[in-house]
Amino acid sequence: MENFSFHSPTYFAFGRGKEEKTGEYVKQFGGTKVLIHYGGGSVLRSGLMDRVKKSLEKEGISYIELGGVKPNPRSGLVYQGIQLCKEEGVDFILAIGGGSSIDSAKAIAAGAVYDGDFWDFYEGKVVKKALKIGTVLTIAAAGSEGSPDSVITREEGMLKRGASGGALRPVFSVMNPELTMTLPAYQTSCGITDIMAHIMERYFTNTKDVEFTDRLCEATLLTLIKEAPKVLIDPKDYEARANIMWAGMVAHNNLLGVGREQDWASHGIEHELSALYDCAHGAGLAVIFPAWMKYVYRHDVSRFAQFAVRVWGCEMDFANPEATALEGIARFESFLTSINMPVNFRQLGAKEEDIPKMAENMKLGNGTCGNFVKLTTKDVEKIYQLAL
Amino acid sequence: MENFSFHSPTYFAFGRGKEEKTGEYVKQFGGTKVLIHYGGGSVLRSGLMDRVKKSLEKEGISYIELGGVKPNPRSGLVYQGIQLCKEEGVDFILAIGGGSSIDSAKAIAAGAVYDGDFWDFYEGKVVKKALKIGTVLTIAAAGSEGSPDSVITREEGMLKRGASGGALRPVFSVMNPELTMTLPAYQTSCGITDIMAHIMERYFTNTKDVEFTDRLCEATLLTLIKEAPKVLIDPKDYEARANIMWAGMVAHNNLLGVGREQDWASHGIEHELSALYDCAHGAGLAVIFPAWMKYVYRHDVSRFAQFAVRVWGCEMDFANPEATALEGIARFESFLTSINMPVNFRQLGAKEEDIPKMAENMKLGNGTCGNFVKLTTKDVEKIYQLAL
Repeated sequence: MENFSFHSPTYFAFGRGKEEKTGEYVKQFGGTKVLIHYGGGSVLRSGLMDRVKKSLEKEGISYIELGGVKPNPRSGLVYQGIQLCKEEGVDFILAIGGGSSIDSAKAIAAGAVYDGDFWDFYEGKVVKKALKIGTVLTIAAAGSEGSPDSVITREEGMLKRGASGGALRPVFSVMNPELTMTLPAYQTSCGITDIMAHIMERYFTNTKDVEFTDRLCEATLLTLIKEAPKVLIDPKDYEARANIMWAGMVAHNNLLGVGREQDWASHGIEHELSALYDCAHGAGLAVIFPAWMKYVYRHDVSRFAQFAVRVWGCEMDFANPEATALEGIARFESFLTSINMPVNFRQLGAKEEDIPKMAENMKLGNGTCGNFVKLTTKDVEKIYQLAL
Repeated sequence: MENFSFHSPTYFAFGRGKEEKTGEYVKQFGGTKVLIHYGGGSVLRSGLMDRVKKSLEKEGISYIELGGVKPNPRSGLVYQGIQLCKEEGVDFILAIGGGSSIDSAKAIAAGAVYDGDFWDFYEGKVVKKALKIGTVLTIAAAGSEGSPDSVITREEGMLKRGASGGALRPVFSVMNPELTMTLPAYQTSCGITDIMAHIMERYFTNTKDVEFTDRLCEATLLTLIKEAPKVLIDPKDYEARANIMWAGMVAHNNLLGVGREQDWASHGIEHELSALYDCAHGAGLAVIFPAWMKYVYRHDVSRFAQFAVRVWGCEMDFANPEATALEGIARFESFLTSINMPVNFRQLGAKEEDIPKMAENMKLGNGTCGNFVKLTTKDVEKIYQLAL
């Protein structure tokens, strides 16, 4: 196990009706002038926006609004938000929505107290200072409600890049599973896939003796495998929604990744897919992750066999561990299909001829991505090929 | 699942050598005048105290000391600490040691900013204000390094009682598994038992649909069952010590208990044992928990069968789930014996004739303790009897 620091100071308010206390939380964490940042009409149509505004008004907190966040959130709106915050003296950003709204809010929060171009943070500069951020989560997926990360796409060149830093962790997150009940089945499945991917990026590691975090990863995956079919059968199954929503946070606040080298190649490889085709991140991950597994599993057959046995209930083939490893990957792929996720380029609508461009866009040069197996541009091309 | 809040803001610095940065952490969290609070000679003999002092001096932080914390920490020393803090203008309490030193430090931290008797908090008053607390942990057991709880014994009547409140969560905890390597085997096993008990107090619940927290509880128990024998064979097994130490924190920062009714009867029943005989809390729990299980398992045979199958690897007897439930309890008891814990009064040195007095000391009156099954004084007596 490697040395680590773990700091997850976000206050999580979980359960029915908690959004009605949003104003209290903003006040508790010192917000006085709020920018409400959100996406499209569902937040308005559902009445959620009204409930949140009412709770702010009850506490005497003033606010302005900036809607229009798109999936794979863009830098254009971020610049707009930063300018707005500076002009209006905003001291607190409240994101309502899923990962896109929260990530966009984080970019604004960092840019509003920075003299340079906020994109610097998405080129590697660590975020040490930002306006305070609160969230009202409506999609179980990105885990951004408890993470120090943000991903933004720059229109110029359609570059999708991530920023990170403790200052980006929300001070509070409101998590009411009821708010996720109206999410379409496809988006629900994309979210579940994203959560699983966050766990697997941490699970496949070369660090030895991380039994505890292994077990926590497996526990979270087992939960998702059991609860996912329930919400597809009954989108209003509160209990299943609740288990998935909380798992989505735990999967990405890094409790499951401490003390170990993490991989994150599949996320990078997927980002080029969603940047180019504007597909849902979760759907792209469903296409990339099984292909990545098929490409790298020989690097550590035992770990993939453990994944197969403990997560997918495969019986260990002691005479042929590789068969067990492959069975685990196959069951994972079957699971993705069972929740109506695409598992190849054709199903996603991606094109073979774009492969060299996407691999090139990762800008690995002579370098590599990933840690479990270090992948060159050539390797990345082969993984895209395996996903055709 | 029930509504809940989760807030675990402690900064955890985990791994080799981290104690040498204690001064930096104190500074980071605003401490300027520190009371170092600790137990006996091992902290001095090992050189740990010197390393911590050096790190404080390096940051120009002044400190005073108060040693002498005993297992099952007493109110007498707490009063002394409170007076010292008030006289010397202390603004930060640094506990070095295990749960006893940390719990005593928490009591001092609360009492130092309170006009009344600190014992009020141990009679039910919630702690809302306290001096900041940091810890350098040397025993994996109590989980006090990440919890908002403290347990103190009042000499008068030997009453052992708990206090709680967000202000009691340490702002940072240094966790270096090497510091636990010199712990005697018996204390190591007591710690492991205490950690398991913290999980099981949360696991046995009447709240339905808590699949995710169930899985996290099981993951943590599975880790302890696998790692415990390793440290008894080789006390210097860093990796096993590390997995156990981190599991001890996760077991008690309440991640494993959110959204569900928790039990805590066994802790209450045990507290009378350790208050009367001054035995180790973990040893007392090893005696009480199997007896509690035998007394209550019929209340929810399915849950005990799940415990048996998922945690103890029992095969489910579908024709006779009760047999599976009982097998799980038996395996738990065997495990405790395998790590040299006492599992009955005789082995602990407790006396049958003290049972009525201990049950009476819980002061249940016409009330009950526990939630999984609500236990009267008569029930508690029967559980003690089952542990003879």
